[in-house]
Amino acid sequence: MPELRKDPVVGRWIIIAPERAKRPDDFKLPPVVSTMAGNCPFCEGHEKVTPKEIFAVRKPESHPNEAGWSVRVVPNKFPALMIEGDLDKHGEGLYDIMRGVGAHEVIIESPKHIVSLTELSVEEIQHVINAYCERMQDLKKDVRLTYALVFKNVGETAGASLEHSHSQMIVTPIVPYNVEAEMKGAKKYYDYRGRCLFCDMAKQEISFGERIVAEEQNFVAFAPFAPRFAFETWILPKKHSAHFENTPKNYHPELAHLLKTTLSKIEKALNKPPYNYLIHSSPFDTNDLEYYHWHMEIIPRITRVAGFEWGTGFYINPVQPENAAKFLRDVK
Amino acid sequence: MPELRKDPVVGRWIIIAPERAKRPDDFKLPPVVSTMAGNCPFCEGHEKVTPKEIFAVRKPESHPNEAGWSVRVVPNKFPALMIEGDLDKHGEGLYDIMRGVGAHEVIIESPKHIVSLTELSVEEIQHVINAYCERMQDLKKDVRLTYALVFKNVGETAGASLEHSHSQMIVTPIVPYNVEAEMKGAKKYYDYRGRCLFCDMAKQEISFGERIVAEEQNFVAFAPFAPRFAFETWILPKKHSAHFENTPKNYHPELAHLLKTTLSKIEKALNKPPYNYLIHSSPFDTNDLEYYHWHMEIIPRITRVAGFEWGTGFYINPVQPENAAKFLRDVK
Repeated sequence: MPELRKDPVVGRWIIIAPERAKRPDDFKLPPVVSTMAGNCPFCEGHEKVTPKEIFAVRKPESHPNEAGWSVRVVPNKFPALMIEGDLDKHGEGLYDIMRGVGAHEVIIESPKHIVSLTELSVEEIQHVINAYCERMQDLKKDVRLTYALVFKNVGETAGASLEHSHSQMIVTPIVPYNVEAEMKGAKKYYDYRGRCLFCDMAKQEISFGERIVAEEQNFVAFAPFAPRFAFETWILPKKHSAHFENTPKNYHPELAHLLKTTLSKIEKALNKPPYNYLIHSSPFDTNDLEYYHWHMEIIPRITRVAGFEWGTGFYINPVQPENAAKFLRDVK
Repeated sequence: MPELRKDPVVGRWIIIAPERAKRPDDFKLPPVVSTMAGNCPFCEGHEKVTPKEIFAVRKPESHPNEAGWSVRVVPNKFPALMIEGDLDKHGEGLYDIMRGVGAHEVIIESPKHIVSLTELSVEEIQHVINAYCERMQDLKKDVRLTYALVFKNVGETAGASLEHSHSQMIVTPIVPYNVEAEMKGAKKYYDYRGRCLFCDMAKQEISFGERIVAEEQNFVAFAPFAPRFAFETWILPKKHSAHFENTPKNYHPELAHLLKTTLSKIEKALNKPPYNYLIHSSPFDTNDLEYYHWHMEIIPRITRVAGFEWGTGFYINPVQPENAAKFLRDVK
């Protein structure tokens, strides 16, 4: 059973998941599974290789865990958190511990062996976005859980162990450190100005224009003012919205289109770099917070994180976001 | 001129250093310089290839920027921050900016082309520790600067671009995000309990024993309770001490010995993995804070950081620190 542990200095929680590997020797090389199209557990026809599906978009006549789907959600075979049991919060001297209760799911984005979300049509990407929302809505009902992070690892450097295009969702019993920090910062701004920081940011970016990467009627993609990573790009709804999973369905086509456009530009500009994306949304147990605003962060993994970054939380970014955005805007 | 920029959400400052690379194309591959012993700018006899030295431990009859040294400190040829000018703090709409004023120095640890600090004798490592202290003491006099981070990148994965054993020091005009977070957490503990968190931690670890890696009379190396990385190891002075640079000289041999022992164990256990280490000390403009305690963090880079970690600040660590510590203790 994995454990959550809180660093007593900064209050950062981490997960001890010894099940994911047995001996120190296992870590001399990163455990990367090289998949062949014919041998991939995520491909159509291999449904029995994965744990049983939780959700799928399927043809009407098809059956669960058989062919006939376009998006399929299954539990992670090597989960970082486990769904059973209670939290059992306890101490060990000055330290705090709780059990690693939570969910860890995989969203398989296509029955075909594709390696990038951009190979899908806008309509197919809508199904993926819809799957994120559906799973969040469902896991929200579990009172032990408070936060869902949707994320995507593409390429070995970015932490992917399977190349078949997929995302993951990890649902935790506490609000993560980074989200809490963001919420605290946004709350301070709100208390001072009476407005949402992200709404203000979106407005300023659109009026300034220099950091815009792409735009739809209701969403905007831009290089943030202070990016940690070269070519980091954020996607935001223009109108205030605290919970990603409450995005109205009639907005999904636009969001899917903007995501496809933005990722395609990054892939073309940087020659299919490894990257991560993630969605920051509000905690489950909050209402429509006026000060927090969901957003997506896309981070190409082309620069290395070294001792200075780990030590300071500063990041050395060699590319000005204005230049990165211009470069991406100009990609056709 | 590089720029510091503050993320308005979390308050994290980052450095925009466009001088370090000119075009987006430069980032398709990480800029790693493969050095041959004969062609290394850090080797004895190549003193003219580096910027002029700032500090060195030298044979009495030798001259600056010539052979005859055992440790040599030079400015980084591609600095992340520049020493000239004032901060010029200003805004851009809702964003905050200041100029990238600071220092970026390289501590070359040996005149010989070695690739690990552990190849040095304890006495030679003392010279390295002494160089860290001397440089911090000196840079402290610059009122524009408030924080020095000493760090080390070993191996390409950990961000090293030259293999010749060296450390770096980046000195910033603001207290870094991570240090501020640590100080805040430690202050809270102090306010509640009236004791230093790190002192308590060291005591608890020593009495518990299971996470101890190695020990000297005045220093202890242990796996922290909630490590972000597999085999992460911290080194602490047992007696309260806020400023690393004030470590009494007669403690240096012990610290050098413990550092050599700990790094040797990690190298043997994990087959010379890439790693970073860094020293967290108090800001320049603080006295002997009762709540903050300097420490060294050694982080082997054998697990990957992916979307989940970037999104949450949670880390998934597959090795229990108790197992990691036992494994390292058992290495002879």
